[in-house]
Amino acid sequence: MGLMIRELFAPDINADFFTALSALAEVGLDMEEAKRVFQDRLRQGVHTYIAILDGQIVGTASLLVERKFIHKGGRVGHIEDVAVNPAHQRKGVGKALVGHLEERAREKGCYKTILDCFDNLEPFYASCGYVKYGAQMRKNLA
Amino acid sequence: MGLMIRELFAPDINADFFTALSALAEVGLDMEEAKRVFQDRLRQGVHTYIAILDGQIVGTASLLVERKFIHKGGRVGHIEDVAVNPAHQRKGVGKALVGHLEERAREKGCYKTILDCFDNLEPFYASCGYVKYGAQMRKNLA
Repeated sequence: MGLMIRELFAPDINADFFTALSALAEVGLDMEEAKRVFQDRLRQGVHTYIAILDGQIVGTASLLVERKFIHKGGRVGHIEDVAVNPAHQRKGVGKALVGHLEERAREKGCYKTILDCFDNLEPFYASCGYVKYGAQMRKNLA
Repeated sequence: MGLMIRELFAPDINADFFTALSALAEVGLDMEEAKRVFQDRLRQGVHTYIAILDGQIVGTASLLVERKFIHKGGRVGHIEDVAVNPAHQRKGVGKALVGHLEERAREKGCYKTILDCFDNLEPFYASCGYVKYGAQMRKNLA
């Protein structure tokens, strides 16, 4: 059947989706909580995409479009939470997700896509056409 | 009168606001266009703050709250477009803006704030309590 990428709908939220996300960080939600989070994300305009391989969700990535005052009111596509089920890594799923999000970002009028990654993932994103632009800084509030 | 920080309202969009933003990048909008961009940003939940010194807008910064599936549906505060009028830099305006956004992020339930910066600004953000966490990667779409 090959690889298909499309936007997530609420009924897609299942154990396979959680397994893919867990490659990134602990999810810690049950299905009902995740559906409420999904509604919140939709209201904010955060678009979640899934990669489906032979009928199974094996990866996910999200796109957040931010309109700026600078750059003539330009739109920036933030690529967030790219995650692939460890059993399906090294099959091109991550690269296909990133490419799909770029197409969606282009359709939504973005002049660039940006993302943050750990230093060890720089070569992967370089292979997707990304150039290092600066540092991601973080402060814990909790 | 000292320094005051508050959320931007449409009537605040003036030449001083543009001058502050221009420290970051070209704006390239007229007032009416900027007001439409502002409405777009409000709809997306992007909150714009301004720093006012002796009645003049001298700085701005924006906060975008993203709800995640990971981390138990946790919220992340993205700090964007911190900009200070060059004539008013080195007076603590940037640091006050960042601190203000962190308080707003905390109120909105964020467990962390993150931001991207050029490498030369790492010491400034370190002085605000930020730790380098990874790399920002960018791809131009246009």
